Amino acid sequence: MKKTIITNGIFITHHEDKPVSVKGFMVIEDSRITYVGEQSPGPLETYDEVIDGTNKLYMPGLVNTHGHAAMSLLRGYGDDLALQIWLEQKMWPMEAKFTANDVKWGTQLAILEMIKGGTTTFVDMYDHMNEVAQAVEASGMRGVLARGVIGLCPPDVQTAKLIEATEFARSWHGAAEGRITTMMSPHAPYTCPPDYIERIVGAAHDLNLPIHTHMSETRREVEANVEQYGARPVAHLEKLGVFTRPTLVAHGVHLTDEEIEVLAKYDVRVSHNPGSNLKLASGVARVPELLKAGVKVSLGTDSAASNNNLDMFEEMRLTALIHKGVSGDPLAIPAAQALHIGTKMGAESIWLEDVGTLEAGMKADFVALDIDQPHFLPKTDFVSHIVYSACAKDVVDVCVDGKWVVRKGECLTLDEERIKREFAACFDTLVKG
Amino acid sequence: MKKTIITNGIFITHHEDKPVSVKGFMVIEDSRITYVGEQSPGPLETYDEVIDGTNKLYMPGLVNTHGHAAMSLLRGYGDDLALQIWLEQKMWPMEAKFTANDVKWGTQLAILEMIKGGTTTFVDMYDHMNEVAQAVEASGMRGVLARGVIGLCPPDVQTAKLIEATEFARSWHGAAEGRITTMMSPHAPYTCPPDYIERIVGAAHDLNLPIHTHMSETRREVEANVEQYGARPVAHLEKLGVFTRPTLVAHGVHLTDEEIEVLAKYDVRVSHNPGSNLKLASGVARVPELLKAGVKVSLGTDSAASNNNLDMFEEMRLTALIHKGVSGDPLAIPAAQALHIGTKMGAESIWLEDVGTLEAGMKADFVALDIDQPHFLPKTDFVSHIVYSACAKDVVDVCVDGKWVVRKGECLTLDEERIKREFAACFDTLVKG
Repeated sequence: MKKTIITNGIFITHHEDKPVSVKGFMVIEDSRITYVGEQSPGPLETYDEVIDGTNKLYMPGLVNTHGHAAMSLLRGYGDDLALQIWLEQKMWPMEAKFTANDVKWGTQLAILEMIKGGTTTFVDMYDHMNEVAQAVEASGMRGVLARGVIGLCPPDVQTAKLIEATEFARSWHGAAEGRITTMMSPHAPYTCPPDYIERIVGAAHDLNLPIHTHMSETRREVEANVEQYGARPVAHLEKLGVFTRPTLVAHGVHLTDEEIEVLAKYDVRVSHNPGSNLKLASGVARVPELLKAGVKVSLGTDSAASNNNLDMFEEMRLTALIHKGVSGDPLAIPAAQALHIGTKMGAESIWLEDVGTLEAGMKADFVALDIDQPHFLPKTDFVSHIVYSACAKDVVDVCVDGKWVVRKGECLTLDEERIKREFAACFDTLVKG
Repeated sequence: MKKTIITNGIFITHHEDKPVSVKGFMVIEDSRITYVGEQSPGPLETYDEVIDGTNKLYMPGLVNTHGHAAMSLLRGYGDDLALQIWLEQKMWPMEAKFTANDVKWGTQLAILEMIKGGTTTFVDMYDHMNEVAQAVEASGMRGVLARGVIGLCPPDVQTAKLIEATEFARSWHGAAEGRITTMMSPHAPYTCPPDYIERIVGAAHDLNLPIHTHMSETRREVEANVEQYGARPVAHLEKLGVFTRPTLVAHGVHLTDEEIEVLAKYDVRVSHNPGSNLKLASGVARVPELLKAGVKVSLGTDSAASNNNLDMFEEMRLTALIHKGVSGDPLAIPAAQALHIGTKMGAESIWLEDVGTLEAGMKADFVALDIDQPHFLPKTDFVSHIVYSACAKDVVDVCVDGKWVVRKGECLTLDEERIKREFAACFDTLVKG
C-alpha cells in the first residue's frame, strides 16, 4: 500500500457540511484519504512520498454535473445568434456529421481542459458513448455517463437507441476501477414522446440506474409542454414515472414553488448551469429557493458551445454572484455554499458518496492551487478566494482516486499535443464536409 | 528609433468600431503601432526586433475604468455580509488605519495583478495618491488618477482635501511620459455636500480636468438622495454643474429612461462594474439601454474587496452574459461589443484617444494571449474566445507605450517577491493594529 503525506499545506475540508480551511497535513493511502488535520500524523520516514505543500491550497476536485464534452468541437461556432438560428443553422447540421472519431477527440480535448482546470468528475450525456468511456478510463478522471436518446424518430430507431443506451449503461457501470458509473438518459421531455420516456424509465428500473434529463431550461419549452401535454414538465415527468428513479435534471430554470416542492419530495437533484443559462438567455434558475426547499443543487458547465470554457471555478463564482445581484440579497449563496455545491453536494447529486470533500475515508480526488500569486493575497479567507478570485489556470496538481493525473500543470495521462492536432483535423473535416 | 515586428500572429484590430481578427503582422516604432495587416510590411532585416507570434493572440490592452487599487489589502476580508455591516464593521475601520505605506504596497500588488492579467490602463480613485502615481510611473502602466474626496468633515478639512486633490491633479497630469493623467473626484453625491461638489467642479474648470464620481450604485442611495435633496442623483449632479465638465460616473446601476437621456445629452460616460454590482447585490445596470442611447460605457473591476480579483476578462464575460440572461435576449451585448467596451470604448471613456485598438497611429498598448491551449480551440472566432473563454492567466506578454512590461508571464518592471512580502506585512499590521 502506497502512503503519501502532504505537509505545510492549506486544506479545504468540511465542518458540518460547510467548507473550511485548515493548515496542516493530509495523508493518502492508495485511493483514499486517511487523514486531514493540523497535527502531524507521525514521522515522515514512514511515508513513500512526502510532498511539500507550501504555497499550495488543496481542495476537493470539482464536480461538473452536466455537459456534452464532444461539443467542444463547436466552441465559438456561431455565438451570439438567436437560439433557433443557432440550433438549426449551426449546432444541428454540424452535430449530424459527428462520427465516433469526432466524439473521441472532442471528448478528449474537453477532458484535457477539465482535468487541468481542477474538475475531477464529470457527467456526460451524448452519443458514441463508448468513445467517451474509453477517454474517461484513459484519462484517470471520474465520469458519470449516459447515452442521451432523442425519441423523435421511427419506432425501430427508438428501439435501437434504447438497446444501445442500455448496453452502454450495463457494460460500463462500475468500470475503470469504479471511476465510471452510468445513467439512463431521455434527452428531454420535448424530444422524447411520453411512451418512449416510460420505456427508458423501465430500463432504468431493470438496471437499477438513475435517470438524467434536461428539464425546464427555457420558458418557451415549458409553454410548449403545457400546449402539447397539458402539463408543465415537472408534472409531466412525474406522471411518466421518471421520479420513481433517482433523477438528476439539468437546468431547472423555470420552476414554480409547487414544482420545487415536487422535486424536493422525490429528492430530484438539479444541475445548475449558470453560464450556459445566461449565454443562451434562458434566465436565472431559482437556486436559493431550491436549496431552501432541500433540493440538492450541483453545478454544470453544459457544453463548450454554450459556455464557452469548462472552468468550474467560473460556475461557482457565477452562482455566488448572480443570485445576489438578481435577488438584491448580499447574503444569497455565500462563497462557502457555492464551494459546497461545486464539490460535496455535486458528488452527492450524482450518487457518489465518497467523493467531494477532503476527509478521512473519502476517495483521494483533490486538486492543488498555486496561491503564491497576487489574487490570493492577503491570506484572509481561502474559501472566499477560491470562489471569488480563483480560476482553472490556478490549478497545478490534480489527483483522482489516489493517482496523480496532473503535476505542475501537465497532464500525465493524456497526450496533449496529439489531442490538439487530431481535434483540429476533426474540426476542419466537419467544416468542409 | 526602435522598430519591432511581430510575425505570424493573430491580431485583434477594429473595423468600423467592431473588433475583428486578422492573421499577419504588426509593427511597433517607439511608442506607437505603425502597421497591422495581413501582408508583410517589408524585409525582416530592417527591424531591430523580430518576434514570432505563432500561437499568440494579440489584442489591445484592457482598460479598467473604476477601482481603488490599494483596497487589494481588504480582499476576502469579511465577504458575504450585509452591506452596512460589511462597510461599518469591516471596510471603514480598516481603511481608517491605512497609511501611505499601506497604499503604496496595496496599490503595487493590485498593479502587479492587473498588468500580468492584461490590463494596461486603469483608473484609480483613492487617498495617498502620490504613492499611487509613483507606482504607476514605476510599473510602466497607464493610469488615470484622482484623489477621491469625501466631504463629510469640517470646512477646514474639506478645504485641505480639496487643495490636496488639486495639487495632486496639477502636478501629475501628463507625467510619466504622458502615461499618467488626472481627474477631480468628489467621492459621491451622498458623501459630499452640494456646495463642496460645486467647489470641486470649480477646481476642475480651473485645471481643465474631467470629473470622476460614484453615482446611483444602489437603490437605497437613490432614495436617500431624493429624501435629502429632493432629486435623484442625476438631476442633483446636473444642477450642481458637474456635467459641465467631461464626466465619468462609476456604477450607474439605477437609472430611469429620462436619466439615461440626460447622461447622453451631456456625454457623461458610465463605468459599468458588473462583478462588484452583483457581489454587493446592487443590481444589474441597464447597459443595453445606455449603449442604445449613445452613452459611452466602459468596464471597471471596482476594488478587490468587492470583486474579488482584478481580471478584466471576467468583467467582459459578465457583461456579455448577464444582460442576455436578465433580459432574455440572446443578442444583448455580443462578444464583439463586450470586447469593444473593454478596450477602445474604455479608452475613449477616459479621454484617451490613441489607446484601445491595434491600428496604425495608436499607442502600442497591447497584450499577447497563449492560444495553444484547449479552451482556445477550435480556431473558430477569436473575439468570442477572448470574451467567453479567456482569463487573465492566459496573458503572457504585455506592452505599454511601446515598452515591454511583462514577458512570458513575468513582470519586468516591478519586484513581485518584494511586493508580496511588504503587502503581507502591511496586512498583518492592519489586522493587529
